[in-house]
Formats: sequence, C-alpha cells, structure tokens
Amino acid sequence: MERADRDLAFMLQYENVAWYENGKVRILDRRVYPSNVKFEVCTSYTEVAIAIRDMVTQSAGPYLAARMGMALAAFECKDKGKEEQHSFLRKAAYELSHARPTTAARMEAFTEKCYQVAINALEDGKRTDQAVFEHALEEINSKYLRIGKVAKYLVDLFPQRGTVLTQCFGETIVGQMLKEIGEQGKEYKIICAETRPYFQGARLTASVAYDQGFDVTVITDNMPAFAMKQGMVDVFTSAADAISCDGHIVNKVGTMQIALACKYFGIPYYVTGEPDKKHKIIDSVEIELRDEKYVLEAMGVQTTKKGVKGWYPAFDITPPKLCEGIVTSKGVYLPYEINRFFDE
Amino acid sequence: MERADRDLAFMLQYENVAWYENGKVRILDRRVYPSNVKFEVCTSYTEVAIAIRDMVTQSAGPYLAARMGMALAAFECKDKGKEEQHSFLRKAAYELSHARPTTAARMEAFTEKCYQVAINALEDGKRTDQAVFEHALEEINSKYLRIGKVAKYLVDLFPQRGTVLTQCFGETIVGQMLKEIGEQGKEYKIICAETRPYFQGARLTASVAYDQGFDVTVITDNMPAFAMKQGMVDVFTSAADAISCDGHIVNKVGTMQIALACKYFGIPYYVTGEPDKKHKIIDSVEIELRDEKYVLEAMGVQTTKKGVKGWYPAFDITPPKLCEGIVTSKGVYLPYEINRFFDE
Repeated sequence: MERADRDLAFMLQYENVAWYENGKVRILDRRVYPSNVKFEVCTSYTEVAIAIRDMVTQSAGPYLAARMGMALAAFECKDKGKEEQHSFLRKAAYELSHARPTTAARMEAFTEKCYQVAINALEDGKRTDQAVFEHALEEINSKYLRIGKVAKYLVDLFPQRGTVLTQCFGETIVGQMLKEIGEQGKEYKIICAETRPYFQGARLTASVAYDQGFDVTVITDNMPAFAMKQGMVDVFTSAADAISCDGHIVNKVGTMQIALACKYFGIPYYVTGEPDKKHKIIDSVEIELRDEKYVLEAMGVQTTKKGVKGWYPAFDITPPKLCEGIVTSKGVYLPYEINRFFDE
Repeated sequence: MERADRDLAFMLQYENVAWYENGKVRILDRRVYPSNVKFEVCTSYTEVAIAIRDMVTQSAGPYLAARMGMALAAFECKDKGKEEQHSFLRKAAYELSHARPTTAARMEAFTEKCYQVAINALEDGKRTDQAVFEHALEEINSKYLRIGKVAKYLVDLFPQRGTVLTQCFGETIVGQMLKEIGEQGKEYKIICAETRPYFQGARLTASVAYDQGFDVTVITDNMPAFAMKQGMVDVFTSAADAISCDGHIVNKVGTMQIALACKYFGIPYYVTGEPDKKHKIIDSVEIELRDEKYVLEAMGVQTTKKGVKGWYPAFDITPPKLCEGIVTSKGVYLPYEINRFFDE
C-alpha cells in the first residue's frame, strides 16, 4: 500500500476526479492519464456537461462531476432572482444528467437531488453552491461505504487463491476489491483486458492494481477466451453502467464477449452494481454510439486508411444467462431475481 | 478496382512483400505499413530469419520471405565447395523454417523444397540462387491460382448480399475473396476487427478492401459479439496459420472468441486453408508466445505503467465444433472430416 499512497491511488482520490471550488470545477482528464496528468477547468455547468459528454472523466467520475457541476450552476445563478435561480438550476440538472444517454436515467436522480438541496438552501438563505458541494461530499462518502460492502460480498465469492480478470475501469469498486482481497488474506493475481478504444483497463485498472502491489498482466481484447482456455482465469468481474430490472447488464463494450467465453469455459462472471428502477426491462436502455474516430485511432495514432469507417458502441448488453451473480450492497442476487433488491 | 491498381493492392504485390535480387532480400515492413512504407534489406539468410521472427512480414509474407532467404543462402555459399554448400543450405533451410515455432511444420516443407532445388541446380552446374528464386516464383504463382479456387468456394457459400466480418489479414485470400465477390455479382460490406496488437485488420485488411472500392468499417476487438447482436454480421471468415488433421484451427489470437460469438448468434464461420499433415492432432501445435512489449503499447505508444506485465500468445485455437466449414482448393469440408482432404 505504500506505493499507492504516494502514487496513482492518490491521484484518483475524489479531489482529483472532479472538484468544485470558488466558481470552478476541475476535472482530471482520464483520456490521457497516466501518461499525462492534465485537468480540465470548467467555469460554467455547460462546460462540465461537455466534459462529461467528451469522456474527460469516466466510470464513476461523471456522477461526481455532475454533482460538482450543480454546485457550479448554483454559483453561476446566485445573483439572480429566486424564480430565475429555480429555472436555471432545473435546466442545469437536466443538461448535466443528459450529457450521455446511456446513464441519463441514473444520473437524473442525482442531479435532481442536487437541485432540491440548492432550492432548500435558497429558502433557508444559505449559500447554495456550498450546500450542493457538501451534499456531493456526503453522497460520495456514503457511496464509498456502500461500495465497501459490495467489495466484501464480491471477494467472499472468490476462492482462496487464483486470478481475477477485469475489463475497463470500475473506479471505486476496483480499489475496494483489491483492498478487500488483502483484508481477507486471499492470494490473487490480476489480468486486465486493455479495453479499447480508450485503454481504461491498461491505463487505469492495471496501473491502480500495480500501485497497490498486485501482480498485474495486461492482455489485448482479443485474448480473454484464450487466457481462459490456458487455465489462467478463475473469476471474471466487471462493474456495470446500468442493470435493468430483468437482469441484463449494460457495461463497457466487450463485457458480453468475455461473459460468453466464461460460460463456455465454466468460469463465473460476477457483476457489481445495482439495478436501475427506471429500466424495468432492458429495452428502455439506449446504447450510446460514440464518435467513430476513436475506433480509427489508438493512443492518438491513426490505424487505417482515410475513408474507412468506424463503429463505436460505448456499451454492450450481457443477458442474465451469461452472469453468475449480481453483487450489490445488500448481497448477491441471481440476475433473474435482481428485482428482489428493491424488497425491504 | 481503379484505386487498387495504383495504391495499396499494388504495394502488396509479391515484389513488394519479399524479393531476392543480386545477393539481397528486400522485405516490406508490415509493422509500420501503411503509415510508413519502409523496406528491410537483408544481406544474409540469418537476417531474413530474424526479420521473420520479428514480424517484419506477416500472414503469407514469411513463406515467400523464407524462400527468398533460401535463394540468398545459395548466393552466400556459391563460392564454397559442394559439401560445404550442402551443409550451409541445410542449416539455412532449418533456421528459416524455424524462425517462428507455430508455422515451423508447414514452413519446413517449403524450405526443404528450396534446398532440393538448389542441390539439383548445383549438380547440373546452374546458378543455385537463380534456380531457387525461379522456384519461389513458380510456387507463388501456383499458390495464387490455388487461392483463387478457395475464394470461389468461399464466396459460393455467401448469401447474395450482406456483411462479412474478418479478423487479421489473410493476405492473398482477402484480395481474391473481394475480387470473387465482385465477379459473382454479390453485394457485400466488410467489417474488420482491428486485430491487436499489430492492428493488421485495421491497417491491412480494411485498407485493401477500401482500395478495392468496398464499404469498410473497422471495429475494435471487443466489439464483434455486439456487432452480431445488432444484426450487423452475416458471415465471419478468417484464414488459418495451421489446421490440424482433427479439425482444430490455429489462427491469429481472437479468432476463437469471434467463432464462439458466431455460434451463440447462429452466424456461420468459414475458415480458409488446408490441413497440415504434420499435425495429426492439435496437441502437436506449439502456440508461439511473443514479446510482451507489443501488448503494453499501441501504435508505439505505451498504454500502462512500467512494471505491469503483458501476455502475448500470437495465436489461439478454435475447436471444430465452432466452425461451419473449412474451405480449401478442393472444396468445403466439415472440420470433423478434414482428413478427407488428403484422399485422392
């Protein structure tokens, strides 16, 4: 853990993901991290929405960035009349939550809460930006505790020793899972699929795990099945961008392919996350198509001839039959029974 | 076809793949093509073996390079005594064919033939290097005709219109398949998986198909399954680096994962190639592990932290049950009956 303290794990502390202060939101640019440590500084909530849309921050980052964006929106309109502040904040809540379509449903609940916090502060004659900022911190801390529980339930499922394969970068859950592996005294190696086109697996997950002292191996996205065939993988786990109430998992494109290989080779796939009430069935999830240019280049270098097209769906859908369990803060559910998560 | 004539297809003519002339073998460096057109010039057969090992040329390129390397070896030893020439050429045949372990069995038959041609020329008092060079040309021409037949059998299997997904770069068969699609009047779009870590799908296959006037889309290696789910793929086809007599297919890593997704979505996978007599069963095929550094970078740019490991198996193995048919110059075989290829 020593390396972690002074290194990457530190960089990924919340204040370095997205942070509001004095009329500005500063966002770590994950697109170029770790080879380049650069921050995007936004002076309006619309700039924050654009940064979210443009993938400046990823994984759990957009949720924090959107809340910090709401604090900034409160700052932007603080000298306007009450009515105007209401409508300004309402517009900000909508635009920030809809910066990326696939996560809009979940994001909306969060920006709506920020809106309410700002309105209440306004009624009480308090500083609205500060109120939203403090609310964002509370939420992130409670999330941290909640994800800690998820990590515990997840690592409980792991055999005593082995190798866990991951895909993309699950942010908080990755750090918490690695910590939990240590706390449970289990012995694990990590394999990260590099996760094109942004290489989050290679750039972020592998780097974080290495910083925490793990034996980490990166493979390209065409290798997971063969790694399984060679007996190199004991468990596959990923986070989710959305889980529908009928047990379908929406996550970074590539997840489904790996889950399918897991089923073929008899390796369990566990997803961490919680179902989205707004998505009763998978059909209501819109799969975001992103700019083709990212597929036609790698680390900024063009890979094919001009004129060749690209296709870039940000996510894919893993059906319930390809997943062994959905690991939540309330415990592990079969994908088919994930609706029970809402039972009290 | 007009664009092709003056462009990439031209670059991939044999004289630009590997060519012997006056004591030198010139090899097109596929690792940097098409962004950079650069030739490796070898003045000894050991340099040719090193170039093959280092992937300067790929796909069908090594077979031509090895033969041209044998012509060079003949040139190198031409002033030695007969006995010395014999042993020099024998050594060259071994080293050139064993530059890469996975293809050694097939390659050995080719360099052995070159050895015989040189020895015969020596007995007849002819120029040995010229004899081997001419033999290499004859072989490549007969191969071209043979692959033309394979392409015909392959495209016969395609419905009238649709989209064909490919992986890596099948060299001659890709060009011949595209030509055959045109000749049969079928309407096809092409999707190329980019094929990490060398991006042969994006750099070579996509560029060649685009030059031949096709509508071409590149996807990253984590997208084939989702493209299938979206109904974007009608047929998947790949070449093979080796096919064992029990119907297993050894090809660029990633092939098996795509074949598995094909089976799941009910899409046919056809492989082009011929069984290797030396590999009665798949167990005798050695899967080459290559330098991890290629997995830890993309287009020459490092993707992860120093200290993180990489794993790079050059090939994977697709079992017979995941393949609809092996398309050869003698027709199409079920993988389970591929041994019948040797019946006369």
